[in-house]
Amino acid sequence: MSNSFGNLFRLTTFGESHGEAIGGVIDGCPAGVALDLNMIQTELNRRKPGQSKIVTQRKEPDTVQFLSGIFEGKTTGASIGFMIKNVHQRSNDYSHIKDSYRPSHADYTYDKKYGHRDYRGGGRTSARETANWVVGGAVAKQVISDIKINAFTSSVGDIFMEKPYQDVDFSKIESNIVRCPDEITAKKMIARIEEIKKQGDTIGGTVTCVIQNVPVGLGEPIFDKLHAQLGKAMLSINAVKGFEYGSGFCGAKMKGSEHNDIFNTDGSTKTNLSGGIQGGISNGMDIYFRVAFKPVATIMQSQQTIDKESNIVQMKGKGRHDPCVVPRAVPIVEALAAMVLTDFMLLNK
Amino acid sequence: MSNSFGNLFRLTTFGESHGEAIGGVIDGCPAGVALDLNMIQTELNRRKPGQSKIVTQRKEPDTVQFLSGIFEGKTTGASIGFMIKNVHQRSNDYSHIKDSYRPSHADYTYDKKYGHRDYRGGGRTSARETANWVVGGAVAKQVISDIKINAFTSSVGDIFMEKPYQDVDFSKIESNIVRCPDEITAKKMIARIEEIKKQGDTIGGTVTCVIQNVPVGLGEPIFDKLHAQLGKAMLSINAVKGFEYGSGFCGAKMKGSEHNDIFNTDGSTKTNLSGGIQGGISNGMDIYFRVAFKPVATIMQSQQTIDKESNIVQMKGKGRHDPCVVPRAVPIVEALAAMVLTDFMLLNK
Amino acid sequence: MSNSFGNLFRLTTFGESHGEAIGGVIDGCPAGVALDLNMIQTELNRRKPGQSKIVTQRKEPDTVQFLSGIFEGKTTGASIGFMIKNVHQRSNDYSHIKDSYRPSHADYTYDKKYGHRDYRGGGRTSARETANWVVGGAVAKQVISDIKINAFTSSVGDIFMEKPYQDVDFSKIESNIVRCPDEITAKKMIARIEEIKKQGDTIGGTVTCVIQNVPVGLGEPIFDKLHAQLGKAMLSINAVKGFEYGSGFCGAKMKGSEHNDIFNTDGSTKTNLSGGIQGGISNGMDIYFRVAFKPVATIMQSQQTIDKESNIVQMKGKGRHDPCVVPRAVPIVEALAAMVLTDFMLLNK
Amino acid sequence: MSNSFGNLFRLTTFGESHGEAIGGVIDGCPAGVALDLNMIQTELNRRKPGQSKIVTQRKEPDTVQFLSGIFEGKTTGASIGFMIKNVHQRSNDYSHIKDSYRPSHADYTYDKKYGHRDYRGGGRTSARETANWVVGGAVAKQVISDIKINAFTSSVGDIFMEKPYQDVDFSKIESNIVRCPDEITAKKMIARIEEIKKQGDTIGGTVTCVIQNVPVGLGEPIFDKLHAQLGKAMLSINAVKGFEYGSGFCGAKMKGSEHNDIFNTDGSTKTNLSGGIQGGISNGMDIYFRVAFKPVATIMQSQQTIDKESNIVQMKGKGRHDPCVVPRAVPIVEALAAMVLTDFMLLNK
Repeated sequence: MSNSFGNLFRLTTFGESHGEAIGGVIDGCPAGVALDLNMIQTELNRRKPGQSKIVTQRKEPDTVQFLSGIFEGKTTGASIGFMIKNVHQRSNDYSHIKDSYRPSHADYTYDKKYGHRDYRGGGRTSARETANWVVGGAVAKQVISDIKINAFTSSVGDIFMEKPYQDVDFSKIESNIVRCPDEITAKKMIARIEEIKKQGDTIGGTVTCVIQNVPVGLGEPIFDKLHAQLGKAMLSINAVKGFEYGSGFCGAKMKGSEHNDIFNTDGSTKTNLSGGIQGGISNGMDIYFRVAFKPVATIMQSQQTIDKESNIVQMKGKGRHDPCVVPRAVPIVEALAAMVLTDFMLLNK
Repeated sequence: MSNSFGNLFRLTTFGESHGEAIGGVIDGCPAGVALDLNMIQTELNRRKPGQSKIVTQRKEPDTVQFLSGIFEGKTTGASIGFMIKNVHQRSNDYSHIKDSYRPSHADYTYDKKYGHRDYRGGGRTSARETANWVVGGAVAKQVISDIKINAFTSSVGDIFMEKPYQDVDFSKIESNIVRCPDEITAKKMIARIEEIKKQGDTIGGTVTCVIQNVPVGLGEPIFDKLHAQLGKAMLSINAVKGFEYGSGFCGAKMKGSEHNDIFNTDGSTKTNLSGGIQGGISNGMDIYFRVAFKPVATIMQSQQTIDKESNIVQMKGKGRHDPCVVPRAVPIVEALAAMVLTDFMLLNK
Repeated sequence: MSNSFGNLFRLTTFGESHGEAIGGVIDGCPAGVALDLNMIQTELNRRKPGQSKIVTQRKEPDTVQFLSGIFEGKTTGASIGFMIKNVHQRSNDYSHIKDSYRPSHADYTYDKKYGHRDYRGGGRTSARETANWVVGGAVAKQVISDIKINAFTSSVGDIFMEKPYQDVDFSKIESNIVRCPDEITAKKMIARIEEIKKQGDTIGGTVTCVIQNVPVGLGEPIFDKLHAQLGKAMLSINAVKGFEYGSGFCGAKMKGSEHNDIFNTDGSTKTNLSGGIQGGISNGMDIYFRVAFKPVATIMQSQQTIDKESNIVQMKGKGRHDPCVVPRAVPIVEALAAMVLTDFMLLNK
Repeated sequence: MSNSFGNLFRLTTFGESHGEAIGGVIDGCPAGVALDLNMIQTELNRRKPGQSKIVTQRKEPDTVQFLSGIFEGKTTGASIGFMIKNVHQRSNDYSHIKDSYRPSHADYTYDKKYGHRDYRGGGRTSARETANWVVGGAVAKQVISDIKINAFTSSVGDIFMEKPYQDVDFSKIESNIVRCPDEITAKKMIARIEEIKKQGDTIGGTVTCVIQNVPVGLGEPIFDKLHAQLGKAMLSINAVKGFEYGSGFCGAKMKGSEHNDIFNTDGSTKTNLSGGIQGGISNGMDIYFRVAFKPVATIMQSQQTIDKESNIVQMKGKGRHDPCVVPRAVPIVEALAAMVLTDFMLLNK
C-alpha cells in the first residue's frame, strides 16, 4: 500500500539507494499516447545528482529503461515497467551508519519498525526514490499535455523571492542552477548555499508550484479534494514539513471581506486567494501552492548521536550530500503534481 | 471513492445540510471495544452549532443514533452504521443561492461539475458533514485510548497564542468558548470574533494539535507517511488552506545544525523539530501540527457576484453562519487525527 | 474493507438481522439520474421474505428510505445514504444459538474471529444484508439502463431447466414463485421445495444470469477481468459454492476446435462459448453465468452440535427460514451483476 | 488498478510476451523473512515453457532477478522489485495476427478497447504474465510457511481422477509431467494430450487445490470472503471458466440434512462439504477448490476468422503453444492461493 501513488493513474515503486536498480510500474496510462522518451530523460536530468556545484556530487547517469507498455512509440494501455540502474554507489561511505542512527534521519524509526534494514545510502529512505516519481510525472505530463505545471525555488533560508506568482516568468526557471526565476534573488540563493556548504552545514527552503490551464471540475468533494491530494503528494517528498495553497497560512489572518474572490461574468475571479480550488474542486483559475523543505539532516559537522546499543557516539556526515535539496526538488514537485492531476483528469473524462 | 476516509479503519459518509439526515458507516472497528456513547455525544456537542455566542445560531441537537455493529454495549467487528437527523433546517434562507454563486464558496464548482445540486444550506458542501467525522473520530479515540490527542485554537486573525506547545495546559482548552488554553489570549480572541461579527464579517485562524503517547513505528514509508495522511486529513476540512508539522514553514529557514534533533540514550530526542515523525514514521516523541483556516466565505455584507446566466447580482449572506470556524474546528481536527492514528495502529498491530 | 463493494460505483453496507435497521451508502452514482424509487421498491419486493409459500415467513415490509444524494427526484453526484428498518424481528427465536454453534453456519467462525457477536438471527451473517445489495443494484440498473440483466432459477436439487439460455423467455421469470421461466419445470421445482419443507429439510439450486446489450470493452485485463469481478460478486452471496461463465466446467472437457467461437464479419461470433468475455473484456455478445447455492444450513430437524464449552448438544432450527434460497436469490444475483457492470461502465466512460 | 493483486500483500506486474522483460513489485512483504531464492526459481521451473513434451516448446530460462527489498538474504519490509528477461521470443511467428483476430482470443477485445496493441505473442494478454504471479506466490509461500498449499491436475478432457482429495498423496504431484498424483490416471492424461497435440488440437481440464493447516478466522465477512477472493484470483488466470469450493456445483443438488458438517467437540467437523470456509471465514478444516480451464484457443488447424477490415480470412496457429494448459497451471493456482492467504494472514496478525 505504501509504495503506490494514485488511483486511476497509479505509480508503484521499488528500489534502494545502493541496490542494483530502482524502478516502478505505471498503471492506468491511457493507450495511444506517443511518448517522448527524450523529454522523460530531460526531466530526470533536472533531478539528477551531480548536475551543478550546489548539489550532491554523486554521479548517476539516471538513465531510465522502459520494459513494457510501449509499442511502436505509443502506449498500449498496458502497465509500463521501468528501471533506473544504480551505477555510482559507494556503499563503504555508509559503514558508519550501520549501527548508529543519524540525527533527524529515518535510521532509528526504520530500525524500530522493521528490525532489518538496508542502511547503505539510507536504503529505501533515500530521496533517490524520487527519480522514480520523476519518471511517473514525466509520463503524466504527456498524458495531460494541455495543463502547464511550473515549479520553482521561492526561498532558500531567509532569502525569499517576493514576486507574486502572477509576475513570474517561468521561462527563466532553468536559467540558473538554483531554479529561481528571478536572477538577482537566484544569485543570492546560490551564494547562500555555497556559503552553507563551506560550513559543512545545510539549509532549508521552499518551492512554489503553479498549475495553469486546468479545466473546471477536477477534484472530488469531501475526502479526495484536489488540494488534499496535492498536499498528501507534497508531504510524501523527503524533508517536507509544510504545504499551503492559495492564501495559505496568510489567509488565516484575513477577514472574509478581504479574502473572498469576486466573480467576473465569465466565471473567472478578480482575485485568486482561493488558489484555483473551491470546495476541493478546480474552478479554472491558476492553482498555486507552496511546499516547505527542512534543511538536509546529514551535515559535515560532528554531531552526537546513539548507536543500536544506546551508547553515545560522535558522527560526522560522509558520502555525498546536498547542502540544500530545494533546487533538485523542483522537478519532483512538478512530477507529483502532474500525477495528481492526471488521476483526476482520468476520473473526470 | 470521495466519501470514504481510511483504509483498515474506514469512515464512509453521506448527507446534506438540509436533507433528512447525515450519517455514515464505520468499517474496520475491532470487536470487543466497550463504546462509551456519552463520550461520543460529548464530542458532538463540542462541534455543535449554537453552543455559544461566537458560533452559528442554528440549533441542532446533533443526536447520533447507532444502527448496527454494537451489541450489548460492545463492538462486534461488524460495520457500525449511524445517523444524525437534521431538525433545524431553514431551507428558505437559501433560496437566494438557488441560481447565484456565493463568492469563494463551492456553489460554482459543484454546479459546473455535477450540473444538478442540492443548494439548500450548501447541500453536501456544508461543513455539517464534519459532524459525521466527529462520530468516527470519537469511536477511533476509544479504540486507541492510550494515545492522547489535544487540539486547540492557536490563532484568530492576527492574535496568536505564542506559547510553545510544551507549555500548554490542555485541561484549559474547554474552559473558554474559543478553545484557546491561554485565558488572556482567549479573551482577546473572543473579543475579536465578536467585533468581526458585528461588522458582518468573518475571520480566519489556526488550530494546533498535539498527539502524545504515540508508539514508535506508526506510518508507512514512501507514499503513506504518517504526516502525509495527517496532512491529507486536515486539508479535507472545509476552509483549510495549509498544514505544517514539527518545525513547518519555519524549518525552511533553518540550518541543519540548528534543526537536527539530537538523541538521548533512550531513543528520545533533546529537541523535537521533527514533530515526532522521521521518514514518515513516528519516533515516539510528541506529534504536533498546525492547520490554517481561511475566513468563512459567507459574510453579512453585500457582495457582487454572478448568477447561472452570468448576470451580475448583489448578494448578502442569509442563514446562520459562523464568524470564525476555528473554535468548532478543534474537535474536528482531533477526530480526523484519531482516525488516521487508528488506521495505522491497526496496520501495525 | 470488507463491507464495501465496487470501485467507482461503491456500495458500503451495515446492519444486523435483528438490529434496528440495515442500510448503506452508495458512492459514485453519477449526477442527474432521475431515480424511479418505485422500481427500487419493486426489486426489494422480489427479494422480500414472506412473499410466497416457498420462502421464509418472516414478514418484513423492507421499505427503503433514502436519506441523501437525491434532490428534486434526481441524483446529485453526492453519496446516497439509505436505510431499511427491521420491524419483524423475533429475537427470542434465537436464544438457542446464543451459546451453541449451528452446523455449517458462520456462528463458529465469527465467534472465533471476533469473540463477541450479535447472535440474534445470525446478526451480520444473515442474508438479510442482501436487501442492501438489492437497493444498490436497483440504483445501478437505472444508471446503466441500456444493459439488460435477467437472472432466473435454473435448477432446484436435481430438477434442471435444460433449455439453452438463448431459448429462454425472460418475461416469464416473474410468472411463478420459483422464478423459473419454464412453466413445467417451475411446477416441478415448487413441488420439490414444498416436499422438502414438509420434511423440515432444505435444498440447493442454481441461478443463471444473462446480461444483454453490453458494449464491447468492459473489463480490465489481468486482475480485474470482467468475469473475475462477476465471480467475486456472486461468491459473496450467502450459500454460494460455485461460479461458472460461458462454457464453464463443461468447457474443461472440450477440444479447442469445438470450443472456439468463430467470428462473423461484424465482430459478433457464431457461437458464444466464451460467454461474452474474451481476455477479461466484454466482446459485445451476451454474457451469461451460473451460480451454485448449497442448501440452507438451518433445518427443522434435530442435529447434533457443540456449544461454546465444547459440550455436545442437540439443536433444531427455530425462527423462520427458507427451504430453498434460490427463488429469492434471483434479484440478488441481478443486483450484484448490475453493480459490477456499472463500475466498469463508469471506468470506461 | 487492473495490474495489482492483493491489499496488504500486493503484487503489481508488467510485461508483454515478446517485450524486453516481464516483472513486478511485491509490496507489503514483512521484514525479516529469510528468502530461499532457489525455491522461487524451482517454482518458476514448474511453470516454465519447454519443460516436457506435453507443453509449449518455447525455451525460456525464466530466471528471476531481484532488484530491491532484500538485504543480506532477508526481506527488509521495502517493496521487492523483480524482473524476468524474455530471451526466446520469435516475434515473426506472430505477423499473421497483426491485423487479424484469433478466434476466442483477446485480440479483438483488446483492439476495440485500446486501439493500439502489442500483438507479438499476444502481448500483455499472454499467459507469460503468470510467471510474475509464480514469483509473487513463491515469496508468499515463504511468508506463510506453516500453511501447505498443493494443487494438482484433476481432469484432462473427460479423464478424471476420481479420488476424494483426502486420499491424494501430494508427494506424487511432481512425479509425472501432467501433475496428476494418481499414476494410472496420469498416464491416460498424458496419452490424451499427446493424441490431441498430434491432431493439432487442444484440450481443457481442471486443477484441484488443497490448502492445509489454515488457522481459524481468515477471511472477511460480506464482500471479502475468503472463498470470494480465492475465486476472483482463480478467475484471473487465462482460460479459466469456472470455480467451485467445497461441495461446489454438486452441493446445489443436495439437501441440508446431507450437506451440513457436524461438529466434533474440538471444533473440527466430521465431514467437510463446507470446504474449510463458513460465512467467508476459515474454520480450520482443509480448504479445497476446483478450477476449470477451457482448451487453449490457438490450434494448429485452419480456422476461419476476420481481419481489422472485417474481411474473412483463414488462420492457422503458428508459434509454440500448449496443447493443454493444465499441467503448467498447477503452480499458478498455488501461487495465487498463496498470495490470497498471505494477504488475509497479514490482516489477521
